[in-house]
Amino acid sequence: MTDALSAQSSIYLPKGFSFSAVAAGIKASGRPDLALIEAAKGTSAAAVFTKNRLVAAPVEVGRESLAASRGRVRAVLVNAGNANCATGLAGIKACRQVCQETAKILGVTAAEVFPSSTGIIGVPLPSEKIVANLPALLGSRQPTKQKFLQLSDAILTTDTRRKIASVKFKAGKNEVSILGVAKGSGMIHPQLATMLVYIMTDVAAKPSELKSMLRDACDESFNCISVDGDTSTNDTVLLLASGQSGARVKDSSVKNKFRVALSEVAKSLADQVIRDGEGVQHVIRLHIEEAKSRGEALQIARTISHSLLVKTAFAGADPNWGRILAAVGRSGIALDPSKINILIGDQTVCRNGSSCPFDEVKAHAELARPECKITVRLRRGRNSIVFTTTDLTAEYVRINADYST
Amino acid sequence: MTDALSAQSSIYLPKGFSFSAVAAGIKASGRPDLALIEAAKGTSAAAVFTKNRLVAAPVEVGRESLAASRGRVRAVLVNAGNANCATGLAGIKACRQVCQETAKILGVTAAEVFPSSTGIIGVPLPSEKIVANLPALLGSRQPTKQKFLQLSDAILTTDTRRKIASVKFKAGKNEVSILGVAKGSGMIHPQLATMLVYIMTDVAAKPSELKSMLRDACDESFNCISVDGDTSTNDTVLLLASGQSGARVKDSSVKNKFRVALSEVAKSLADQVIRDGEGVQHVIRLHIEEAKSRGEALQIARTISHSLLVKTAFAGADPNWGRILAAVGRSGIALDPSKINILIGDQTVCRNGSSCPFDEVKAHAELARPECKITVRLRRGRNSIVFTTTDLTAEYVRINADYST
Repeated sequence: MTDALSAQSSIYLPKGFSFSAVAAGIKASGRPDLALIEAAKGTSAAAVFTKNRLVAAPVEVGRESLAASRGRVRAVLVNAGNANCATGLAGIKACRQVCQETAKILGVTAAEVFPSSTGIIGVPLPSEKIVANLPALLGSRQPTKQKFLQLSDAILTTDTRRKIASVKFKAGKNEVSILGVAKGSGMIHPQLATMLVYIMTDVAAKPSELKSMLRDACDESFNCISVDGDTSTNDTVLLLASGQSGARVKDSSVKNKFRVALSEVAKSLADQVIRDGEGVQHVIRLHIEEAKSRGEALQIARTISHSLLVKTAFAGADPNWGRILAAVGRSGIALDPSKINILIGDQTVCRNGSSCPFDEVKAHAELARPECKITVRLRRGRNSIVFTTTDLTAEYVRINADYST
Repeated sequence: MTDALSAQSSIYLPKGFSFSAVAAGIKASGRPDLALIEAAKGTSAAAVFTKNRLVAAPVEVGRESLAASRGRVRAVLVNAGNANCATGLAGIKACRQVCQETAKILGVTAAEVFPSSTGIIGVPLPSEKIVANLPALLGSRQPTKQKFLQLSDAILTTDTRRKIASVKFKAGKNEVSILGVAKGSGMIHPQLATMLVYIMTDVAAKPSELKSMLRDACDESFNCISVDGDTSTNDTVLLLASGQSGARVKDSSVKNKFRVALSEVAKSLADQVIRDGEGVQHVIRLHIEEAKSRGEALQIARTISHSLLVKTAFAGADPNWGRILAAVGRSGIALDPSKINILIGDQTVCRNGSSCPFDEVKAHAELARPECKITVRLRRGRNSIVFTTTDLTAEYVRINADYST
């Protein structure tokens, strides 16, 4: 393994990117809330967005801009404190305006400025505050770790810590760096939402190449985590490639290394998001094994992950395999429950869909660990996935039930 | 309206049914846990069962028996304290055995004895305790309110109160009675599960007629409630018709009255189940209006009802319409969020998918009531449903997170 999991200490800055952050007065706390990534000329981009039908204005504008620029991005403008979602046509206009103003100062086209917002839903975006602070934001950009860390902090909302992952690898005489930053507290605060992820690299790649590699990386990371099953309206994962390392993904040896490294960064960021969930006591690695297809395994993993009965059992470290089996049974897959084995840690607790003797103290101890492993073996095919989820604690309910409007 | 909603005081015993209950030592508490409904010769039956692929032994046996007897039932044997689920072939055998023993004493066929179990999952059914207590159970059966109330209490597990609904109506010179009893605490206790519903009437009807009327009644009642989204492995709704009132559903005037009365009993029981949910503070009537189809409305209602963010907002009486709109957006229906209006009580809080000014104090007060109304108007069709759900409280998590195995 590389440095992805100890990323706070190792930051490999890819060539071709500058960063900055300022306090524009959008967050009530007065902390930095407006951030910029500037990308060198020729930077390729690909993005994946939330599948929620209700999408925030920046998601709509960002998607259009990427299409209009044919996958070229010169700047990413992120604000925290306001999601610019459910804000109607005025929200779209406000988003376009801040992109245009940024583009004007940078001397690029508006479609090359990619917007992101995170924060409260249904409140007009204070675009005047953003516009007023653009000169200071753009004037202070630098290609340094310090500025990158400022950006990493400015995009946070209810997160308790910054989320960074970085990897580098040799490609012949070149060295390629990947640097990712994420925002998302897993469990979502009242009216605040969103996971935002930006991954930058200096490998050279076409937007179409980036797109397919980004999709694969997301499938194994952000699409395999779930805290509460609610899909945000603003979720965005953006991959930017400046090409300045000299290495190109059209060389197959570079491509293979890049795929592995990108996946590692994405998995590390996904893990950091889930660990920062409010009220989370236990992270659960659900191994769904021997499914007929990956889609089937995913559907079962999601049903288990979203079951209130399963999640509360996890909170109590209760080896209640009956709830897991019942969740599998209602997942919508026409399977035979009498073939299923369930393991907690390395111990079988349910064999052929029925109870079997097991050491309950040991199973409880496994579930009481900060991270534990549960295996559901379907015995009907050859597809397996690992899905990461969390318990549901009374603390989560308290946080999310506060009357806050 | 009739007496369905004040059913505890009015019990109309349909002709042709006797009841009894005894303590067989299955519940750890030592309270009555074995109950019988005896039905007169010629009684027709129809049932609907859980859609979970993991089904308890009594569901499997009951379904087979109804097919084998062509919809004839002479007795219902219910035990509480053990669900006889995930118990493998031994569970099926134990279930068959208790049916056979009951049939022997009553002088009927085993297929005419309908079994039900509710309680802990994955523990062998103590059939010897049941068999040993059958003579006392059958010997004490009587067609009286007192015995019916004993049955109503014996089938409970974590329920805090019995659930009964009863209606009668005139059909020419005949009088038809419907009497329903249910078990289910809405929110489900560790390893305990199940909603069981038995509805008895003295109307005359063929099993096929009962089946279609029961399905319709369930669609409007038990299929329109959700507490935690988990489907039990034992859920059963059984309708028995003795025919002893003299009125027949093949007379269309009787059929229409019976449909209305049956629906009323089912709705009342469904309401009683949801109100008895552990930790429930608020019951929410979700009106999904102007959907393209009933199925679409149901899918949206379920997505809203199962959203942890929505449910926790309900717990805090937080008029957080953004969470409701976001849940609609991820429901899987390809709708246009910018057409949606959301009302809390009679007040519009979201118009055309965007925020609009509203009286927050009033909205909070509406949500703080024990029962409140939320309307989601999709403006894309003519189908509407009312779906009943609950909030999610820290108390629910506490109850279900207890390490209990």
